[in-house]
Amino acid sequence: MNNSEHNHLVVMAGGVGSRFWPMSTPECPKQFIDVLGTGRTFLQMTVDRFAGIVDRRNVWIVTSQQYADLVKEQLPDVPSEQILLEPCRRNTAPCIAYVAWRIKKQDAQANLVVAPSDHLVMNGEEFRRVIASALAFTAESDAIVTLGMRPTRPETGYGYIQADMSAPSLRNSEIFRVDRFREKPDLATAKKYVQHEEYYWNSGIFVWSVKTIVNAMRIYQSDIADIFEALFPVLGTERERDAIDENFPRCPNISIDYAVMEKAEEIFVMPADFGWSDVGTWGSLLTLMPHDGDGNAVVGQEVKLYESSGCMVHTSGLRRVVVQGLDGYIVAEKNGTLLICRMEEEQRIKEFSAD
Amino acid sequence: MNNSEHNHLVVMAGGVGSRFWPMSTPECPKQFIDVLGTGRTFLQMTVDRFAGIVDRRNVWIVTSQQYADLVKEQLPDVPSEQILLEPCRRNTAPCIAYVAWRIKKQDAQANLVVAPSDHLVMNGEEFRRVIASALAFTAESDAIVTLGMRPTRPETGYGYIQADMSAPSLRNSEIFRVDRFREKPDLATAKKYVQHEEYYWNSGIFVWSVKTIVNAMRIYQSDIADIFEALFPVLGTERERDAIDENFPRCPNISIDYAVMEKAEEIFVMPADFGWSDVGTWGSLLTLMPHDGDGNAVVGQEVKLYESSGCMVHTSGLRRVVVQGLDGYIVAEKNGTLLICRMEEEQRIKEFSAD
Repeated sequence: MNNSEHNHLVVMAGGVGSRFWPMSTPECPKQFIDVLGTGRTFLQMTVDRFAGIVDRRNVWIVTSQQYADLVKEQLPDVPSEQILLEPCRRNTAPCIAYVAWRIKKQDAQANLVVAPSDHLVMNGEEFRRVIASALAFTAESDAIVTLGMRPTRPETGYGYIQADMSAPSLRNSEIFRVDRFREKPDLATAKKYVQHEEYYWNSGIFVWSVKTIVNAMRIYQSDIADIFEALFPVLGTERERDAIDENFPRCPNISIDYAVMEKAEEIFVMPADFGWSDVGTWGSLLTLMPHDGDGNAVVGQEVKLYESSGCMVHTSGLRRVVVQGLDGYIVAEKNGTLLICRMEEEQRIKEFSAD
Repeated sequence: MNNSEHNHLVVMAGGVGSRFWPMSTPECPKQFIDVLGTGRTFLQMTVDRFAGIVDRRNVWIVTSQQYADLVKEQLPDVPSEQILLEPCRRNTAPCIAYVAWRIKKQDAQANLVVAPSDHLVMNGEEFRRVIASALAFTAESDAIVTLGMRPTRPETGYGYIQADMSAPSLRNSEIFRVDRFREKPDLATAKKYVQHEEYYWNSGIFVWSVKTIVNAMRIYQSDIADIFEALFPVLGTERERDAIDENFPRCPNISIDYAVMEKAEEIFVMPADFGWSDVGTWGSLLTLMPHDGDGNAVVGQEVKLYESSGCMVHTSGLRRVVVQGLDGYIVAEKNGTLLICRMEEEQRIKEFSAD
């Protein structure tokens, strides 16, 4: 393992997780929840996953101000000055810029992994092997590396990365130049992608040195770069918070994919297969969890099912649940709110929660 | 109205209501619950129903010791010495004997209505007219009167009373001699009963003078009568409770129907139609409650239904419920216990609650 003192982990933990209502709420979104009932939240599992690769002192969390207490509570080992608070939502590019300049102030040689806080990885060992390999690559180059997940189904909900498989990197035969980024496809296109080796899901996991990302921002997003260049003297000081609150909202609302990845030259993809899921829907959660003989998955204190199949029962406040005669339903309860909904209608959950 | 000072109401409130779990539990059965969401429990509605006929000072409740506090809380106007506590369950005959001898001690001229605590009456005005008429009848005779409910469906869950319609009482043309009591019939028999005018549901509402019932007990249940004759000197004294605790368990376990009604001579039935239901099942509750356009009935704080029909949603602890895509289900929650169950499987609720 490449446990360099310059390795840093950046976890983006500002999402609102509206598709998992009522388990996930604006007050406590998915990444702060023990979704699988294992005793660890997605955020905690995300940080745990980097054990041996990134020192706990080099973990950075970027989140909204309203989640600061949740992060501190769930990650007491992370220094509180490394929990960076966005005063407003500006998508991923300003978020990444903020943390990049902030880390640069502390460690100009830093080599970063940027990861979402609410995804699941089944094979932690392979995950660490891949991350260590990517970090070794970016430590000695100006490369921007994204992890590409081998598609297992014609998913229309993700962006895809098309790799140039003819040209593996000379220094790492597992890493390829990116040919093109592809927007979320229609079903026909997704079916084509899944049959060709060069298409990968964009996992949202990035690896780069701080030097590389700061430089890329300067070239492709000079508006954002100018803001953080100007803020650089106060970063890491007691004036940081006020200065960020004042200036961060001036950043454009733009994703890192649009802002940098689709524009930059030295972009690489490292195909990987470590049992990844973004756990974006109740249906995907159901497939990931242990099932009873009828395909039901259960998180809760005392849950009994009769003549039920393909159900996801997820309760936290209820002491006892009996379900009879449901096929393919979500039964989710938290903090006095109960949802019972056909799995196939789960895209309407946002509507239900808003009504 | 016949608001005689000798009119007394006896409410039998010792049932356990196991078919309405988890709304009804052994700790707080159906009669103590605001089942309809109107702000009054079944027990309170039962007593309210006699306003103008029985003075509040003449209300007697017989219940189990464990429900004494619930009764006092829900009926603060009832003198606490008129809440009689059975130390164990011995069915209705010993219960009625106890309260009969107890009332006799206080008012030898008493004229009683005995009523279950967990039934529903829709037409209170007609109910009071019928009760007043029956009380006037028993005030001046040794008659035992039962109220017979005109069947509206071939119900196999009730006992039936066959009236001798050829011979109305000379003093009250609405009251007939009972020809026979009939056990719970099979469906074919029930279908026959519902087509003939002389068959009525046994509502469990009885009217008689204290003299009459005490006498009937002496004749037909001398074991029980002997026990309460012996206890008579201590009834209404501070020694009552201990003496009852010691002697009540010696009573045989027998219903008033078997013990007296099916044996006695002067038994009458008063057919009545005041929108009665014993509310014995979730299904019957659903039919009794106001519905939305899709036949759903709801008790709860904030309940929304989408693409659902024929559902009974009854929650008390949950603050918010969203139900999508359920047809013909019970969704019931209380004190952290949730049941979701097909209405047609509700006879299994006792099994679910025990497992």
